[in-house]
Amino acid sequence: MPTIIPIAAVGYVRGGRVNPDDDGWQTVEARIELEAREFGPEALAGLGDFSHVEVLFHFHAARQETIEKGARHPRGNFAWPKVGIFAQRGKDRPNRIGATVCELLSVSGTSLRVRGLDAIDGTPVIDIKPVMKGFLPRGPVREPQWAKELMAGYW
Amino acid sequence: MPTIIPIAAVGYVRGGRVNPDDDGWQTVEARIELEAREFGPEALAGLGDFSHVEVLFHFHAARQETIEKGARHPRGNFAWPKVGIFAQRGKDRPNRIGATVCELLSVSGTSLRVRGLDAIDGTPVIDIKPVMKGFLPRGPVREPQWAKELMAGYW
Repeated sequence: MPTIIPIAAVGYVRGGRVNPDDDGWQTVEARIELEAREFGPEALAGLGDFSHVEVLFHFHAARQETIEKGARHPRGNFAWPKVGIFAQRGKDRPNRIGATVCELLSVSGTSLRVRGLDAIDGTPVIDIKPVMKGFLPRGPVREPQWAKELMAGYW
Repeated sequence: MPTIIPIAAVGYVRGGRVNPDDDGWQTVEARIELEAREFGPEALAGLGDFSHVEVLFHFHAARQETIEKGARHPRGNFAWPKVGIFAQRGKDRPNRIGATVCELLSVSGTSLRVRGLDAIDGTPVIDIKPVMKGFLPRGPVREPQWAKELMAGYW
């Protein structure tokens, strides 16, 4: 059996979209509220010195039955090639984890306000990391044409 | 109680470093081998069209007892400010999940070869995502001075 790793939500997305629409996420603002029984404001100390955070979250609304373990056309669009689930970032993936960089607008107590997080209201958050320049890609980034097309209207 | 999310390893890091040294990761090469009972080569189809992957992994060697839920000096270095665990990317964090962008060197069957992944031999991998330019930070990235200093020798 593969290793099972129990993960606990560290907080939840509050506000923002209720439905997981495909596009137009950049203007969406939402809060992330830490689990108040687990964390105090000190867990976010200094985070406001960063402009962006990377949020790891659980695509909780994606259904277990539709998880893809092989290949599929991204968004079911046959104009794009059939590629492996680990060659795309869609929600119907093993473990259903999303990882998105978004703007950090403000931090207040155990809550942060973000813009451009593509996670719906109520989404369990499993980690928050500051975006450091040193963790961005080293070297030029190459990607296929379909990825450019898919992202054209995303934000 | 917070939501518990059971996560299964989708693969493992093989090769590379045995010890989690702080610095000099960029030249480290390693493989990621998918769980062969769960995935076939189609899960990685098309991934080779990307130059970089983002690997989510479990800091399995970090001890449960040393997990920080509040604030601490990054790397225990008192020259740097005491900041919240969600304002740093160290391993002793709730859920012990790492997220690192590294170079994809090649894909072969259910295995990929990467360079610059800061995870030791045997690390459980919980997701692999292609790096798309559209998912990089939108807008200029601002970070505090300590983050620049910490990353100076990391790669």
